[in-house]
Amino acid sequence: MISKKMEKLVENNSVIREMFEEGKKLAKIYGHENVFDFSLGNPSVKTPAKVNDAIKEILEKEDSLKVHGYMSNSGFEDVRGVVASSINKRFGTNFSEKNIIMTVGAASALNIIFKSILNPDDEVIVFAPYFMEYDNYISGYDGKVVVISPNTDTFQPNLKEFEERLSFKTKAVLINTPNNPTGIVYKEDVLKKMSEILMKKQSEFGHEIFLVSDEPYRELVYEEKELPYLTKFYDNTFIVYSYSKTLSLPGERIGYVVIPNEMEDSENIITAVTIANRIIGCVNAPSLIQRTIMKCIDEKVDVSIYKNNRDLLYNQLVNLGFECVKPEGAFYLFVKTPVDDKEFCAKAKEFNLLFVPGSSFGCSGYIRIAYCVSEDMIRRSFESFEKLAQSYSMK
Amino acid sequence: MISKKMEKLVENNSVIREMFEEGKKLAKIYGHENVFDFSLGNPSVKTPAKVNDAIKEILEKEDSLKVHGYMSNSGFEDVRGVVASSINKRFGTNFSEKNIIMTVGAASALNIIFKSILNPDDEVIVFAPYFMEYDNYISGYDGKVVVISPNTDTFQPNLKEFEERLSFKTKAVLINTPNNPTGIVYKEDVLKKMSEILMKKQSEFGHEIFLVSDEPYRELVYEEKELPYLTKFYDNTFIVYSYSKTLSLPGERIGYVVIPNEMEDSENIITAVTIANRIIGCVNAPSLIQRTIMKCIDEKVDVSIYKNNRDLLYNQLVNLGFECVKPEGAFYLFVKTPVDDKEFCAKAKEFNLLFVPGSSFGCSGYIRIAYCVSEDMIRRSFESFEKLAQSYSMK
Repeated sequence: MISKKMEKLVENNSVIREMFEEGKKLAKIYGHENVFDFSLGNPSVKTPAKVNDAIKEILEKEDSLKVHGYMSNSGFEDVRGVVASSINKRFGTNFSEKNIIMTVGAASALNIIFKSILNPDDEVIVFAPYFMEYDNYISGYDGKVVVISPNTDTFQPNLKEFEERLSFKTKAVLINTPNNPTGIVYKEDVLKKMSEILMKKQSEFGHEIFLVSDEPYRELVYEEKELPYLTKFYDNTFIVYSYSKTLSLPGERIGYVVIPNEMEDSENIITAVTIANRIIGCVNAPSLIQRTIMKCIDEKVDVSIYKNNRDLLYNQLVNLGFECVKPEGAFYLFVKTPVDDKEFCAKAKEFNLLFVPGSSFGCSGYIRIAYCVSEDMIRRSFESFEKLAQSYSMK
Repeated sequence: MISKKMEKLVENNSVIREMFEEGKKLAKIYGHENVFDFSLGNPSVKTPAKVNDAIKEILEKEDSLKVHGYMSNSGFEDVRGVVASSINKRFGTNFSEKNIIMTVGAASALNIIFKSILNPDDEVIVFAPYFMEYDNYISGYDGKVVVISPNTDTFQPNLKEFEERLSFKTKAVLINTPNNPTGIVYKEDVLKKMSEILMKKQSEFGHEIFLVSDEPYRELVYEEKELPYLTKFYDNTFIVYSYSKTLSLPGERIGYVVIPNEMEDSENIITAVTIANRIIGCVNAPSLIQRTIMKCIDEKVDVSIYKNNRDLLYNQLVNLGFECVKPEGAFYLFVKTPVDDKEFCAKAKEFNLLFVPGSSFGCSGYIRIAYCVSEDMIRRSFESFEKLAQSYSMK
């Protein structure tokens, strides 16, 4: 009796659940401390203390009916104003509160964008490897996913194939940088080139192509330099942001969409996205956490902890003979497997190592290692990595 | 460039916005204290103090990474367990945590249910007058809304027409009691009769028909008696609940769905609804507020304040010659208009009274008066109500 669209998802669910159960099962047999679960992208660095302090302060000083109450579907005006100012200060942009729509995390931000712009059979281009949940966000509004094959030398987007596959049906291009699953940061010149291609194709096809930039990992970069803000390169850009990783608040579901005035038909699109936020049932981003964000606008988690994890694990893997493009952000390593990636994951389990196969990100022959875990666990896992490498005679 | 489905919604939006602007405009001219806005269904009774105390306690005692972190897409297991026990204790049911899915309010609960069960052109029956946002929740998944005409003597559901219009295409029936916009509580015998009709029609058509009971106003009733729990009458019932009104937390977006084991194919439906919660982008209900609910499971706002408002306004309206079925719950009066309801609303504005016309709830010839306002405002509005009545020579 479930809907046809959901049937396949329900069937596949048992596979995912099995993977989770596997971890629990291994922990039961070998002890929690002897199982090395690198499969989950859950922030492991502490939420900044200021976040909880801000919540307490709001509860003490502000009117409860306001703090927990309805506001505009796009969010509290003062919160959006502070978000806009903060972006302007960092990137020299010129947004006001009307360009910001607070959302129930990045996932619902993507949903309300696609609900607002997609007609049946419109195409959305994504670059492999990519977070395959995007498929559900796009097909939920009857869009078709077009996957550009990976550029495995650098994991930068493959612009040659991109240009070829942009078509009259392309309504949007969805990118994610720093990237899940590779940890790669898309280079500024690559993004500029991508924008130029989009501008050219827009005039060729005579209609807008939207760029949707999903940036939950923006603050998780290991160089001091700010990543470029894409609305400056290309007018028809939606920026999707989340505080899940920035502040280690994934359960709170708080993020936003930026819609610049320069976007074609921006007034109507802002209205459409705001209405979509309401009618998909989010109504508005959670209110107390919205007000908390306003007070913690310049906070972020201690990124050096993730950087340390990356260095530790990357060096160990390279020493063992594994191939991996060194990532500059997020908290993932995307490592080449000497055999089929699913087979490799099965073998790794024998050493209590849990990974996600690259084929789950549209790029087989690799695994994703999520190093948002304790340094201690990484160090304890080294012996297992060694045994795994030995079993393929890698060194 | 917005999607065809959203075009009409964006067009209509300006009408709604105008209504909001009207209130602001009037307040500017006549002063905020001289404008009587009865158009909004926003809780006005204070959030119980225990809620904010619970939040502070959680922040002090629990691990931040857990409090703000990811959990199962259906919510924290312990929270769901407490919710299930509370329902069992009150209604003699037998739910466990697996029957409960925590949601981003009732609105997203309805969305994920419809996403899980509707195929294109499936029909969903609703009873006028009704919250017309339901149309968006249903059409969002390509379902068709079938509206049963109102029973204006009592505003109980019109079961005769209901039975006639149940068809092979009926996939679900959506009810809302206590009702927005009438404040009417559906009677137990009417609900039992409705269940019997559904059982009969299920066997006649050879497939399930789901009953979806939207109950955000369950605790806002003015008699001591608990309202019946519909899963006891009819197996294929989804209960949709929200804490928005119970605890005056509408901005926090917290509610749940109950899916009983007795529902046909319940395992798969639980899985589907959980996946839908993830893929429409909610991912999970906000985490800190989930944990807060667990600590405030027996709390509710002071309903006597709403009851007092109802009595005050109802008596005044009846004295002035208005006709209205006396409501027993929620915070609305649904009042018959002596002329066309939109014309009446325009006239009322001349006296700085703001209402929503019944035609916005699929029932013209009435207005909805939301009395979730201060008693003081109600008293101050009496003079305007008198003038409005006089202008129609009602007394």
